[in-house]
Amino acid sequence: MRPKNSSPFSPSPLSALKVVALAGGVGGARLVDGLAQVLPAQNLTVIVNTGDDFEYLGLKICPDLDTVCYTLAGIANPVTGWGRINETWNSLESLTTLGGPGWFRLGDRDIGTHLERTRRLKLGERLSQITRDFCNAWGVNLTVLPMSDDLVQTWVYTDEGVLPFQEYFVHRRCQPRVSGFSFEGADQAQPALGVMEALGLADMVVICPSNPWVSIDPILAVPGIKSALGAKFVLAVSPIIGGQTVKGPAAKMYAEMGIEPSAPAVAHHYHMLLNAFVLDQVDAPLATALDDQGIPTLTTHTLMTSADDRRRLAKEVLEFAVKIMEEKPPERRNSI
Amino acid sequence: MRPKNSSPFSPSPLSALKVVALAGGVGGARLVDGLAQVLPAQNLTVIVNTGDDFEYLGLKICPDLDTVCYTLAGIANPVTGWGRINETWNSLESLTTLGGPGWFRLGDRDIGTHLERTRRLKLGERLSQITRDFCNAWGVNLTVLPMSDDLVQTWVYTDEGVLPFQEYFVHRRCQPRVSGFSFEGADQAQPALGVMEALGLADMVVICPSNPWVSIDPILAVPGIKSALGAKFVLAVSPIIGGQTVKGPAAKMYAEMGIEPSAPAVAHHYHMLLNAFVLDQVDAPLATALDDQGIPTLTTHTLMTSADDRRRLAKEVLEFAVKIMEEKPPERRNSI
Repeated sequence: MRPKNSSPFSPSPLSALKVVALAGGVGGARLVDGLAQVLPAQNLTVIVNTGDDFEYLGLKICPDLDTVCYTLAGIANPVTGWGRINETWNSLESLTTLGGPGWFRLGDRDIGTHLERTRRLKLGERLSQITRDFCNAWGVNLTVLPMSDDLVQTWVYTDEGVLPFQEYFVHRRCQPRVSGFSFEGADQAQPALGVMEALGLADMVVICPSNPWVSIDPILAVPGIKSALGAKFVLAVSPIIGGQTVKGPAAKMYAEMGIEPSAPAVAHHYHMLLNAFVLDQVDAPLATALDDQGIPTLTTHTLMTSADDRRRLAKEVLEFAVKIMEEKPPERRNSI
Repeated sequence: MRPKNSSPFSPSPLSALKVVALAGGVGGARLVDGLAQVLPAQNLTVIVNTGDDFEYLGLKICPDLDTVCYTLAGIANPVTGWGRINETWNSLESLTTLGGPGWFRLGDRDIGTHLERTRRLKLGERLSQITRDFCNAWGVNLTVLPMSDDLVQTWVYTDEGVLPFQEYFVHRRCQPRVSGFSFEGADQAQPALGVMEALGLADMVVICPSNPWVSIDPILAVPGIKSALGAKFVLAVSPIIGGQTVKGPAAKMYAEMGIEPSAPAVAHHYHMLLNAFVLDQVDAPLATALDDQGIPTLTTHTLMTSADDRRRLAKEVLEFAVKIMEEKPPERRNSI
């Protein structure tokens, strides 16, 4: 019997892996933060959902981009999952005293980000270049890219009408019952500069534990990205643990659309793209069926409560991917 | 000899006087605050310079309107003379960390004002209505009006070119040498709703100790206002004390335009409109010449360092005006 280290697919050390991560908000940001601790900065590119972006008080707000960047910069608010640490709220308090709308909570430091981004966008600069410069200023060395520099707007179809995402998510607190989604502008959008290049060079793509419907699907809706994933080893981490989401409405959305929320439901969501799947140990009994369907699974502790959790999960995810790539190189995967 | 109280022009009690004040920034705001302590709110209207207004970081900033309103609301920063008390600076700090422009100092609470004003202006609302609502929210009961709801922009002609006012005033710290001013848009501007009505009803107009060139002249440049003043008793308070200004570049401007900065220079600036003039006691030796030129003067302590100073000066100004009106009613003044 061949010893493991003489496999025909010699495993790269993790630090040589070129990885692209697709991410939405909190869960995505945390796994990306873990990946950033394991991989050299030049080997990690994050493509972030911008379908949630919107204009509020004249400011261009990019909630997922900011959550990812703030998290990587170590300036994210660890309690709320959005916004910044050591934040003050004087601008919004002053504005609401005057009768202005305060339903979307913007802290003072956060407003500084939005003011500067809005100022530069009005000068005609690209969101991807602005994000790159912001990352440099924040000491974030890896590449964080918006999925597109073009406007893509996520609409949520509900029993109370079609709502812009933030209206549904923040203002209405996800209360309306969901029946579907659309990503306006996606079919005309181009991947941001650097997105296709990073995907072309990647050894693997990690779909982070973000909302499949409204964080990952908008990214996949940008022409070119999904087909680029078809040529790559793709691993997804379930955002659903024990039928529930750590944060956000993914489980509620599955249920309202008639699908029992579960890790396997997430795997099926992506199954045309998937080479490997990671789910929580509490869902271990559900893993066998996925294995039987040809989706290799890793069950582990996926809840990232500490910085160590992020690093450990990232390392396990990458090691598992390398192991599967050795056993079943991507060219043998069913094509989409 | 007739006793004073049987004058043919029976003096109204101060509280019955209907007063319009013309004001720019700090000095104007302080005297207005004094007038507000002496007069019932319904008898005092302030018309404020908006020639300094500008757009910065996409926000509509109205420095003089805000200084007046913040002062009346008791939320002005007493040290800087602009901005708010108990202010924080996190937005601007966050923005400048990202390389954004921080030359115009905006505090967090102040930014809340600008965000809400900008939001409402974009909806097509008038600055005068927004200001009225802001005053209500801040508990300011008297009427504060921008001189116009139309855009008027003060340009400063200098040896370094023609500069927008804030560029000259804040960014360049008044260093370029001044040769003149223009108020772009003034000839097409309409007085804001309420301005002509207040002037029509006024018993007197107080020109506050603000910069004659760039705080008061822009107001007088709005068609209709100067001629309305021609029909009224007009009193001005000198912003120049002992040849210097308490704050701001008025004295420097006079000198650069070849006029010795002095209280009489201010009186001459307005002399076509003036029925009475108030100057500081340190300038008492200069008062005689003005009296000889037919401009009745009051010399008193005009530096407003305490809240009591504001109230006392306002009371003295009004009492002096009533006295002069008794002696020399406005219809006997030289017409302009």
